[in-house]
Amino acid sequence: MTLSRSDLSSLEKITGPRGLSIKKEERLVYSYDATGRSYLPDAIVFPETEDQVSRIFKLASEKGFPVIPRGAGSGMTGGAVPVQGGVVLVTSQMNRIIDIDDQNFTATVEPGVIVGDLHKAVEAKGLFYPPDPASSSVCTIGGNIGECAGGPRAVKYGVTRDYVLGIRAVLPSGEIIKTGVTTAKGVAGYDLTRLIVGSEGTLALVTQAVLRLLPKPAAVKTMAVFFDRMDMAAKTVSAVMKQAVVPRCVEYLDRPSLDLVRDRLSFSIPPETRALLILELDGSPDVVEDDAVRIESFCRNQGALEVMVAGDQTEAATLWQARKSLSPVLYKIAPHKINEDIVVPISKIPDMVEAIRKIQQDSGLTVVSFGHAGDGNIHCNIMYNKQDAVQAEKAHKAVDELFDVTLKLGGTITGEHGVGITKMAYLPKEIGALELDLMKGIKQVFDPGNILNPGKIFK
Amino acid sequence: MTLSRSDLSSLEKITGPRGLSIKKEERLVYSYDATGRSYLPDAIVFPETEDQVSRIFKLASEKGFPVIPRGAGSGMTGGAVPVQGGVVLVTSQMNRIIDIDDQNFTATVEPGVIVGDLHKAVEAKGLFYPPDPASSSVCTIGGNIGECAGGPRAVKYGVTRDYVLGIRAVLPSGEIIKTGVTTAKGVAGYDLTRLIVGSEGTLALVTQAVLRLLPKPAAVKTMAVFFDRMDMAAKTVSAVMKQAVVPRCVEYLDRPSLDLVRDRLSFSIPPETRALLILELDGSPDVVEDDAVRIESFCRNQGALEVMVAGDQTEAATLWQARKSLSPVLYKIAPHKINEDIVVPISKIPDMVEAIRKIQQDSGLTVVSFGHAGDGNIHCNIMYNKQDAVQAEKAHKAVDELFDVTLKLGGTITGEHGVGITKMAYLPKEIGALELDLMKGIKQVFDPGNILNPGKIFK
Repeated sequence: MTLSRSDLSSLEKITGPRGLSIKKEERLVYSYDATGRSYLPDAIVFPETEDQVSRIFKLASEKGFPVIPRGAGSGMTGGAVPVQGGVVLVTSQMNRIIDIDDQNFTATVEPGVIVGDLHKAVEAKGLFYPPDPASSSVCTIGGNIGECAGGPRAVKYGVTRDYVLGIRAVLPSGEIIKTGVTTAKGVAGYDLTRLIVGSEGTLALVTQAVLRLLPKPAAVKTMAVFFDRMDMAAKTVSAVMKQAVVPRCVEYLDRPSLDLVRDRLSFSIPPETRALLILELDGSPDVVEDDAVRIESFCRNQGALEVMVAGDQTEAATLWQARKSLSPVLYKIAPHKINEDIVVPISKIPDMVEAIRKIQQDSGLTVVSFGHAGDGNIHCNIMYNKQDAVQAEKAHKAVDELFDVTLKLGGTITGEHGVGITKMAYLPKEIGALELDLMKGIKQVFDPGNILNPGKIFK
Repeated sequence: MTLSRSDLSSLEKITGPRGLSIKKEERLVYSYDATGRSYLPDAIVFPETEDQVSRIFKLASEKGFPVIPRGAGSGMTGGAVPVQGGVVLVTSQMNRIIDIDDQNFTATVEPGVIVGDLHKAVEAKGLFYPPDPASSSVCTIGGNIGECAGGPRAVKYGVTRDYVLGIRAVLPSGEIIKTGVTTAKGVAGYDLTRLIVGSEGTLALVTQAVLRLLPKPAAVKTMAVFFDRMDMAAKTVSAVMKQAVVPRCVEYLDRPSLDLVRDRLSFSIPPETRALLILELDGSPDVVEDDAVRIESFCRNQGALEVMVAGDQTEAATLWQARKSLSPVLYKIAPHKINEDIVVPISKIPDMVEAIRKIQQDSGLTVVSFGHAGDGNIHCNIMYNKQDAVQAEKAHKAVDELFDVTLKLGGTITGEHGVGITKMAYLPKEIGALELDLMKGIKQVFDPGNILNPGKIFK
């Protein structure tokens, strides 16, 4: 649909002239997210207050135009793209850290706060907010809540859901709700808080969240473990996870990933390396030192070629380079990628690795895998050229096969990226019609007019 | 309503004669839960399979009679009592631990499994299921999921919600749903799993749950810390929680609690004691030893009268006596109690303690407080005689005041017991009409005929 002139002028009355844009070039910018899919919005609004959000939603409900919440647009499944046009609502102007309470271990934040900024702010007070998606330097807390974001540290600390205590949010009707608590515990009524977390901006727009914090770990120790066989690395992951010490990160890179970054590293890696694990421990300094020694010798016994243990933060950052420089250089292989974040039970990682190898072989496409091995969450990137019809078909067939084997191994098609539009067609492979009907029923309760981020998750 | 003869005979066809009871004495037994409130059911069923549950629900939906799920009946808010009559469905015959997977750190269980049995079974495999309500020797996993149970270890490890990965459940229609995952992560679609957790048996009956497990901590250290002033103990709780070491339990007992158990302990406590903290640490043996020394001296600096550190498991059990023997002896004071499990931000515990003292003084009733101080979750027991109209009125006024001050301090009226029937009237103090309407809408989606545990949480 297209917004009328009068709708646009009503919007401008709410946001002021600086809070609304209908410029073609800006509409183009906000037509994308990190998936590269593009749908042109009619307008973009930048509300500064909850009250403005409420009035925008009331107008949208009355006039029937879609509103699409957007944080930084770094989502991986198209959650922030306006598939049915309408108004993209950007939370960048609602970006205050309202409170960091070091007595009660909570932070109260607005949705537009950059996750990395929150990390810095709480760490300066000796506190710790664990969720750390790879995009943390740009992505927002609102987006993280919408997608239930994870990141490397989830293996020890869990995901966004585990850190949201309570929420203030605007319903599509424009009405304001408060869910959950500001305390460590609370079970009064149905858990609307965790229903909103991970609902991909389809139920309500979060305007404030109370997040649980932990004490900042006193010490962190990072190590890189090199293997000449991928299956050996995969088996080491399962074995490490069975130790009493749960590392805070257990990341892995497969051979195509390593080939991409090998020349870009400031340290040399054994030439026969075909798989890399990055392990990170945290806790009290003495314990971490002891555990690091134990894990190092454990990995050597598992057949590691080499183990590099970072002596300090700078060396740790160097080891992380290998993982963090990956995404940007992926496009060296092919102009497009399909990035899937499947999860399998950790004991099935070796099977999954073999299945990915086979998919790669059968399709003839390059498939680059890396990710959060410690919780079985593998980011599998199928590289191809969209303009080449044969390649495109092969890529989509590869995705189909990838999801089929994932589900067969007892896994899920998405560990932290959500469904959005890119996985919508595949969702019924995992979730039955009855369960989808319950979800649609819930959507109907929150958003009877279907104005909030329509066309996402399910039809 | 009353079930017809034909309904009862249909039920018997589903469950077999051993799976149905309509005997008066059994109906009386199942008319109660731990609140002491009593409503007579028409019948009790003991299904053995999911299929039987499904057929019972189909019949109930068709005939319009209520079904009330019941685990062990140890709930504290009347969740399992049949306020509108109907059929009490007891899960005791669905009590298999289907699988304990030490590769993937999961347990798959039926709802009737006793939580304490699960603890033993997983610990025998070097694994750990943290939630540990005081009733763990009798209460069931199904009940724990229904209420989102906590327990002393929640302060470090979180509550039931944090350990339920996926669910199989029967909808009121009799249809079977599967929610969530069996993996460490998963965000496909709305979070129906955590919606069902804590829904107090009003949305679906869980027939199988996949629970997350942790490695069993290698060492545990328990200590008792005695104070001559309650406010000093309360301040020590906040101070301890700010240390980098998070104890796995931070329990407290106030003076009336201590007076009740003082003579029953197999160790003597300083006579001037007016408050007791029980702290428990877990982790690697060396760390736990070091941390115990650190926490002990920290508590002494905070003004503790004495600190007793358990040398072994037997001594630890002795210290726990003080806490665990409390509930049974409470009735020495008065024939009835109102047991509330309020939560306040931990920094507000001193204020709450003072408020409780004032409520006690104003009402003239004995108010006994103890509980999970580490997460601000206080079990506040107002002791009275129901038959004494003046006392009963004072008791209910005291509850009103307790909830008002709790909410004023930023807390919640229930940390782990749920709403059930006993807190239903108070729920609107905490949760707005709009949020209640959303919950009712969700109930309607799951249970349009309102046959599953009707008359609970909200009208």
